[in-house]
Amino acid sequence: MAPRYAPSLRSRLAPLLLLLQLGFIVIYAFYTEIQYHGKPHGDTFSNIYPEFQDVNVMAILGFGFLGTFLVRYGFSALAFNLLVAVIATQWAVILNGIEAYNEKIRLDIRSLVEAEMCTASVLISIGAVLGKTNPVQLILISLLEVSGFILNKWVLQTLLKVRLVDSIMMLHIFGAFFGLTLTWILYRKGSEQRFEKETFHHRSGLFSMLGTVFLWMFWPSFNSVLVDDRSPGRKLEAVCSTYLALAVSSVTAAAVSVLSSPKGKLNLIHMQRCTLAGGVAVGVAMSVVHQPWEAMMIGFTAAVVSTIGHRYLKTQMLLAFQCHDTCAVLSTHGLPGLLGWTAHLLLQIKDCDNHTTAIRFAVFHICTLLITVTISLSMGIITGLILKWNFWRPPQDKKCFDDQAFWEVSSQHNIPLSTMKITFSSETQRIIIFYILQFPNLAVKK
Amino acid sequence: MAPRYAPSLRSRLAPLLLLLQLGFIVIYAFYTEIQYHGKPHGDTFSNIYPEFQDVNVMAILGFGFLGTFLVRYGFSALAFNLLVAVIATQWAVILNGIEAYNEKIRLDIRSLVEAEMCTASVLISIGAVLGKTNPVQLILISLLEVSGFILNKWVLQTLLKVRLVDSIMMLHIFGAFFGLTLTWILYRKGSEQRFEKETFHHRSGLFSMLGTVFLWMFWPSFNSVLVDDRSPGRKLEAVCSTYLALAVSSVTAAAVSVLSSPKGKLNLIHMQRCTLAGGVAVGVAMSVVHQPWEAMMIGFTAAVVSTIGHRYLKTQMLLAFQCHDTCAVLSTHGLPGLLGWTAHLLLQIKDCDNHTTAIRFAVFHICTLLITVTISLSMGIITGLILKWNFWRPPQDKKCFDDQAFWEVSSQHNIPLSTMKITFSSETQRIIIFYILQFPNLAVKK
Amino acid sequence: MAPRYAPSLRSRLAPLLLLLQLGFIVIYAFYTEIQYHGKPHGDTFSNIYPEFQDVNVMAILGFGFLGTFLVRYGFSALAFNLLVAVIATQWAVILNGIEAYNEKIRLDIRSLVEAEMCTASVLISIGAVLGKTNPVQLILISLLEVSGFILNKWVLQTLLKVRLVDSIMMLHIFGAFFGLTLTWILYRKGSEQRFEKETFHHRSGLFSMLGTVFLWMFWPSFNSVLVDDRSPGRKLEAVCSTYLALAVSSVTAAAVSVLSSPKGKLNLIHMQRCTLAGGVAVGVAMSVVHQPWEAMMIGFTAAVVSTIGHRYLKTQMLLAFQCHDTCAVLSTHGLPGLLGWTAHLLLQIKDCDNHTTAIRFAVFHICTLLITVTISLSMGIITGLILKWNFWRPPQDKKCFDDQAFWEVSSQHNIPLSTMKITFSSETQRIIIFYILQFPNLAVKK
Repeated sequence: MAPRYAPSLRSRLAPLLLLLQLGFIVIYAFYTEIQYHGKPHGDTFSNIYPEFQDVNVMAILGFGFLGTFLVRYGFSALAFNLLVAVIATQWAVILNGIEAYNEKIRLDIRSLVEAEMCTASVLISIGAVLGKTNPVQLILISLLEVSGFILNKWVLQTLLKVRLVDSIMMLHIFGAFFGLTLTWILYRKGSEQRFEKETFHHRSGLFSMLGTVFLWMFWPSFNSVLVDDRSPGRKLEAVCSTYLALAVSSVTAAAVSVLSSPKGKLNLIHMQRCTLAGGVAVGVAMSVVHQPWEAMMIGFTAAVVSTIGHRYLKTQMLLAFQCHDTCAVLSTHGLPGLLGWTAHLLLQIKDCDNHTTAIRFAVFHICTLLITVTISLSMGIITGLILKWNFWRPPQDKKCFDDQAFWEVSSQHNIPLSTMKITFSSETQRIIIFYILQFPNLAVKK
Repeated sequence: MAPRYAPSLRSRLAPLLLLLQLGFIVIYAFYTEIQYHGKPHGDTFSNIYPEFQDVNVMAILGFGFLGTFLVRYGFSALAFNLLVAVIATQWAVILNGIEAYNEKIRLDIRSLVEAEMCTASVLISIGAVLGKTNPVQLILISLLEVSGFILNKWVLQTLLKVRLVDSIMMLHIFGAFFGLTLTWILYRKGSEQRFEKETFHHRSGLFSMLGTVFLWMFWPSFNSVLVDDRSPGRKLEAVCSTYLALAVSSVTAAAVSVLSSPKGKLNLIHMQRCTLAGGVAVGVAMSVVHQPWEAMMIGFTAAVVSTIGHRYLKTQMLLAFQCHDTCAVLSTHGLPGLLGWTAHLLLQIKDCDNHTTAIRFAVFHICTLLITVTISLSMGIITGLILKWNFWRPPQDKKCFDDQAFWEVSSQHNIPLSTMKITFSSETQRIIIFYILQFPNLAVKK
Repeated sequence: MAPRYAPSLRSRLAPLLLLLQLGFIVIYAFYTEIQYHGKPHGDTFSNIYPEFQDVNVMAILGFGFLGTFLVRYGFSALAFNLLVAVIATQWAVILNGIEAYNEKIRLDIRSLVEAEMCTASVLISIGAVLGKTNPVQLILISLLEVSGFILNKWVLQTLLKVRLVDSIMMLHIFGAFFGLTLTWILYRKGSEQRFEKETFHHRSGLFSMLGTVFLWMFWPSFNSVLVDDRSPGRKLEAVCSTYLALAVSSVTAAAVSVLSSPKGKLNLIHMQRCTLAGGVAVGVAMSVVHQPWEAMMIGFTAAVVSTIGHRYLKTQMLLAFQCHDTCAVLSTHGLPGLLGWTAHLLLQIKDCDNHTTAIRFAVFHICTLLITVTISLSMGIITGLILKWNFWRPPQDKKCFDDQAFWEVSSQHNIPLSTMKITFSSETQRIIIFYILQFPNLAVKK
């Protein structure tokens, strides 16, 4: 009963990547140019470049390391995140450019930032299917989801005149629902039980926490980078609000985690993910948050919702809806995103002068959500159906969550036998332990 | 003789965190507002925001990962550091605001930076009691120490007209003495011997070195962020001086470490901590360091003092003064801080024109130190006595330095038995080795 | 046959470091001063400081963690990288200063940046000899190579009027050839076979990937920091080109890695190193890259060349030329550097109006390469011959790639016996496994 090998991706992954990349180069050669505008949105090069770096750090390092919590899947999580991020960003630059201009596509720091934020929605979605898909499927997801997200952005901006920053911040909701639909369609029988190699360990938790910490530290840049700096103080508000929301949600997540644990202990996963819920929620409501306490209350509620979701909802989703959500994107991005949307609604209505405006805004705001969820679910279903095709050679259940399915194992020629670690089967382990306990007698007898 | 469970923190930690956080939200709701001032201290938003990020990275990531050198306590060190940092910062914003204004408390990037620097003193102190306290105690420390530090800052600024940057830079001395007093009062009998789980390992050393490297890289921002940019070149001096001091102290720490080792080998802990001594010392003396060689000499002396302190002082402190200093904050922050204070005194006197000014400055400078040490020790004693109360449920000796005391162990449902690692008792180990050595004969006989 | 101890470095490393550092302090005391120029090159303090930080992060963290892929040599790789970087930078500031001014040496952020970029050539070279040299040798390399590189820069700038940014960007070619010459001269007999402790493991791969990711993210700063911002848009072009080249080379490296693997799997080392090839190549050609597709084509070709080099060239170099290249600097920096040089030539000729200018430029450009390679090889030979001297106490073959040769092992007093991991010899392992397989019967018989 030797384990079967994972299917070779040579004839799928290599041509896909090469064709895609050469295609992008051709498109960029004919349709893009690097444009220097001076101060198009009130930002100079030296103002926006550090913020671009921060967003870049979040996309490549933050999301990448956040996925390394699976003990046997760290390298895949990190490297596939990089691949998906760069492909999605190149594609998003093209789509964003087509949408906005008739002439050549503008390429500058700002267009890269916008593209990276569209990419963030993909990085959220792949969290839901992490470990159960191969890189070919992940790349297809990145292409289709970016297209869907930019379609959604375009619909919101054209039909409902939603501001750019508000339409982009729907990325959390869009990404979460897209990912959930995907994983629901790609459901594998028998995964009510944990996959054989879906293991988590304290040590790899530190790598994952590194991702958390980077997301935490640079989230203020993520929420403020698209805020227009020409109205003085708006950017400051965005940064301070995000910082406070994150601070509050760290404390609250710890409290709720301890409170909901029978033994009164903290949970590693909660600290890794629910501490970020405040940043998600306040980002979605960003344009109407002006007071510190508003941001803090949003952070507080988001952390409560997110932690309770992590504690009780993940298993429910699996058993009731056959939705195996590896990174719990529903509780990390979906629920806090919806909460931020609600906060946006309430705060905006509070500021309205009369009922008519308030009701008009509520209708408009509910339409925004409905359109986003609809496009997200439809694109998720389409993508899921395409991915179900066996042509893409998905990994077998036994090879899920396993780096060895995709990476050359170095052991045969790199690690000399003398340092090889023996892993005993559980059967043998019990025998050894049994033997060891008995041993002294045996030694005496001899 | 099964190991007892660590006491549950459910009824202590969760209510404390929730009450504290809701209390902060209420205070922020009534007394703070986000204020945009244009250029209050010569800094615009885009100038100060990257420096705030750097300080934030040091507080959250630098100090957090620096504490992960304990092999079984990495997750606690990192996550409790985050909790303590955000609570202390929220509290420091309030206290700093009360002190300075009668109206609403100003909230902007600069006030966050000042608050994070007050927080740094707490992050230093908890290094001394790391592993021997529970999160409830750490949060109490953070509240009391921030109050003490801001009281000290207020006394220095009001009574002695010490400049803001000089009074804040006393954080190293304040934090170190506060932490030492704490750990002296919380001394546990029998800890002359190493705690059972106070283990260090090469592998976790890389995580810890990550913290070191981040502190090293961003220390120039830490020392320069509060320097007023209106006098051109002061900020440049601060950055260059700190960089040079750190460079020199890295080289010197390596040299002294090799020199003081009987086998002529480097020590991992020295490279992790003594390389930073230059940054501490030059920070305390910042306002009078104008020449590169001054910064370099300070870095050189600081590294010598710090490395020798690490090599010989830590055990002395434990045996002679019953002071178990987990992270050796005395040698990392205390001694270099005092050295920086001395350098400040000498350099200032060198620049004085006549004896009267020199003596007046010396008296004034000695008072600064005395006040800081006095407030630090008193607050340390008060905090220590409060923490000794068993109501806070400190971990038993056997559960010190152990993540399992505070974190849900995932093994039971996450790690399948087949990958479980067996850890033998030392007794059994010896038996196995004995058996293995004998084994071939036995195999032959059979 | 107990393993011999590695030779003690006490009498070599400590005096060398102390003398060097005190010498630097004396030189800095007499010949340098911190100068504030306002806007000398169109950059203010707040513009250039974040870029200096980025370059610093690449040198200290990026190159440092990139070298941690060797499972038993992580700590050495990281800490020696820090030592080498700070010594080389201090030395480069002096040499750069001598070269340019008759008066005092200018010290500001810009001179630190230039010095760190000269240092980068050393950090590349030591990759070739990593694990086979001791810190004393590494420090000698850093002094000699920085001298050689600055000599080369001076020759190029004085004789051929090469621009500063072009002459500094030869660092990849200079560093790679210097390192290869070194490792060729320091060749140890018998290293056609892998060294006993030259082991690579999945887990340490994540640390190494952390280095990769940081280099990847901050490479745009590395390539753009010296570009003059006075001609608007040049800096933007440099940043966008580098980003695109890196994105393309990540995708291409993955494709070529899968394509060249018999089992259709990715290779960890390729993802760690070949993803960076685009940044190297586009950096060397930076001054003539204006269109996005040019940068992308350079990134594409560089990744192809680099990945194929990693797959087939490393073993060839070892067997045919007796050149043991630990980090494969030839494929990571050498070949992409040469490719960038070629791209520079082709793009410049394409822009030329007539044949005369084109040929003149070609001759000039070939001379640039020839001079660089000549100086690099000569300095490499000189340095190699000096390092061969046994006075420096190089580690024995058995102690190569082993942290224990240079670092105090903490096990004896830090790790209690009960958590010690037993590592069996391969012989014993086979016996145990044999025994375990047989065991049930034996248990029954008894």
